[in-house]
Amino acid sequence: MRTALERRARLLGPHMTTFYDTPVHVARGEGVWLWDTDGRKYLDCYNNVPHVGHCNPRVVEAIATQAAQLNTHTRYVHDLILDYGEALTSKFDHDLESLLMVCSGSEANDVALRMAQAMTGNTGIIGTDDTYHGNTSAVSQLNSSKTPVGGYLPHVRQVPAPDNMAPLGGDRTKQAEAFAQDVEQAVAKLQASGHGISALILCPYFANEGFPTLERGFLDRAIGAVRNAGGLIIADEVQPGFGRIGSHWWGHERLGFAPDIVTLGKPMGNGHPVAAVVTRHDILTCFQEAFRYFNTFGGNPVSAAAAMAVFQVIEDDNLVGNAADVGEYTLNLLRQVQSHRDVIADVRGAGLFMGVELWRDGAPATALCARMVNEMRERGVLLHSVGRHDNTLKLRPPCVFSRENADQLADVMDQALSVVT
Amino acid sequence: MRTALERRARLLGPHMTTFYDTPVHVARGEGVWLWDTDGRKYLDCYNNVPHVGHCNPRVVEAIATQAAQLNTHTRYVHDLILDYGEALTSKFDHDLESLLMVCSGSEANDVALRMAQAMTGNTGIIGTDDTYHGNTSAVSQLNSSKTPVGGYLPHVRQVPAPDNMAPLGGDRTKQAEAFAQDVEQAVAKLQASGHGISALILCPYFANEGFPTLERGFLDRAIGAVRNAGGLIIADEVQPGFGRIGSHWWGHERLGFAPDIVTLGKPMGNGHPVAAVVTRHDILTCFQEAFRYFNTFGGNPVSAAAAMAVFQVIEDDNLVGNAADVGEYTLNLLRQVQSHRDVIADVRGAGLFMGVELWRDGAPATALCARMVNEMRERGVLLHSVGRHDNTLKLRPPCVFSRENADQLADVMDQALSVVT
Repeated sequence: MRTALERRARLLGPHMTTFYDTPVHVARGEGVWLWDTDGRKYLDCYNNVPHVGHCNPRVVEAIATQAAQLNTHTRYVHDLILDYGEALTSKFDHDLESLLMVCSGSEANDVALRMAQAMTGNTGIIGTDDTYHGNTSAVSQLNSSKTPVGGYLPHVRQVPAPDNMAPLGGDRTKQAEAFAQDVEQAVAKLQASGHGISALILCPYFANEGFPTLERGFLDRAIGAVRNAGGLIIADEVQPGFGRIGSHWWGHERLGFAPDIVTLGKPMGNGHPVAAVVTRHDILTCFQEAFRYFNTFGGNPVSAAAAMAVFQVIEDDNLVGNAADVGEYTLNLLRQVQSHRDVIADVRGAGLFMGVELWRDGAPATALCARMVNEMRERGVLLHSVGRHDNTLKLRPPCVFSRENADQLADVMDQALSVVT
Repeated sequence: MRTALERRARLLGPHMTTFYDTPVHVARGEGVWLWDTDGRKYLDCYNNVPHVGHCNPRVVEAIATQAAQLNTHTRYVHDLILDYGEALTSKFDHDLESLLMVCSGSEANDVALRMAQAMTGNTGIIGTDDTYHGNTSAVSQLNSSKTPVGGYLPHVRQVPAPDNMAPLGGDRTKQAEAFAQDVEQAVAKLQASGHGISALILCPYFANEGFPTLERGFLDRAIGAVRNAGGLIIADEVQPGFGRIGSHWWGHERLGFAPDIVTLGKPMGNGHPVAAVVTRHDILTCFQEAFRYFNTFGGNPVSAAAAMAVFQVIEDDNLVGNAADVGEYTLNLLRQVQSHRDVIADVRGAGLFMGVELWRDGAPATALCARMVNEMRERGVLLHSVGRHDNTLKLRPPCVFSRENADQLADVMDQALSVVT
């Protein structure tokens, strides 16, 4: 392992992060399980990319079969991207009927921002203040984890993300008003500076912000302010999408709003680098007229085959239903743990996307949360932390997660809590 | 076919381009061959992505095997990215020993620009005026095919690319001086405007500019001017790289200069979406300190396996040698065609990257070139056009191209010329 870490630091740079104090040297995956090079087995409660399970045989078969038959770019005509596009867009409101396929959620968001700029003629963008939308130069401007070199550009404005534990506490009506007021102010400032507003971009689950519990309609007033000023709404569904939240295929459906542009990524190909932007036909047309865009790998036959297999497994194995059922079961187990563990301030989530927020002595328990992540890894359960104070255990397993897996998770969490508290 | 084109226009937008007046509806690929849905066979003389041949069985096997075993991100430790990184960097000068893996050449160039900015503290970038470096917002600023919405940003400056057929004609010494003077002026302007110079980025084969014939050392004075001003040199090896040019693995070796940052893309995974930046350890370290960069799919085990298989096939099957041998054979055949076809003004290239430039009545024969592309497609040979005036037939086949394939290409080109002239 030391040798691997040394090679890694030289080849991949000294700041290439690893998860856990003792990184996991992975060798094999299957379903919800990972094995390390020593043969040790881990319950994966965190990786959303293998959405239909690590090494899902139907996805592997689809990739292998198509890779052996044909893989080339979309300047040739091929049916698979069309079949997939029709299947995918059937899961959206009728007017979201067009798509542009790319290789990563970062590329998808990079395109989405330009679509909004082309469509509105404005450049201003509003995002939330504790988020992540990807790694290109343009979308890095929206990331709050590190200020970009040269600072934030003046056309980008951040508004405070909703936060259940903030001074406004659990009063969601006041939270929604505060959020809308912040958006209204940002719109006014972008208009005053001459940028105007092209889009409000947000994850409709606020996944990186610690996914506060929000009622349907929470965003309505903020969205209205953006629309009234001529801006569009971009829903970054990279994390909540494809049925993970159990109640719906998409996070924006759960919150009850209709985005103009939706971006998709990580789980779309179960690990194969494929991502997409789904939008209205008029927006895609406008973008294509304003920019000359082509993506060599985006939507190639193998990428389309991988995405189609993921789509079909979600449908055939009713993984949205599984996320709803096992998610609720898991939440109940975690609330039982909470009932005798004071350090758990909140248990929340939807479907197979859950958080366990830790506070101690009236403050976010950030260090304790980091210890929990490592203690659970040592006990064979993989998860990580999230949120403004990094004090929430983030649970986001492959959507084939079972009740038995949930039992193991809750048991190990309780054991680890007994060690760290 | 009509139905497929209609579905395509609705789903993928009306301006999603296709090659050829009658698009090819592709079904299957193998080696240098593509088949359409009617079973018609085409000799592929254009697609550089399937570098080791369409559906190369070793690459397919590597992808299928690894996809069935494990595919997850690089915050876990895995050996394959390290094995590949060591193999790949062995093909570069000693100080280019570190790499960052991404999903596309666009992502690679987007990162490379930020590496140069982090390393130099400057923002100014110089590119050539008839090029393409990818599709993200940032690198779109370097593309000359279409002015970005909102115009070019002031930190980006374009210099005229070398052009054998320009007024300076074949006098390469004067061309090199003119190119260097343009770069020196661009540096001076970026310094005067306060941006300073972070990098000169170029394709060391000037692939999109029509790949003018350039001698070793051609760029030395221009590169010296950039370095003297504190800037770095980025070689975009997406097109010439991985041995296509026959004489060397990389275009910059052929031109005899040492870049600070190299970007790789299309052929790297034979169609699997994988790309990379290769650079010095100090530059990667500086970038990682300035930015918080992570790429979910970049360098995952399947991407590393695909890239490793491509690397091994190039080595084991001596495809660099094949590119040199068959490339020279093809050039000679094309020059024989030229000897009795006045419309061919120039035949040039290196390895399996060749151009046939068409002029008529003292002017670039742009329309005739477009007719040639379609006539050859009708005769079962796929290629395309390139260059400032789109009057050069671009030949860039999979590197398993054989002498027999070259015979067919030359025959069909001669037939098509007899039709269009």
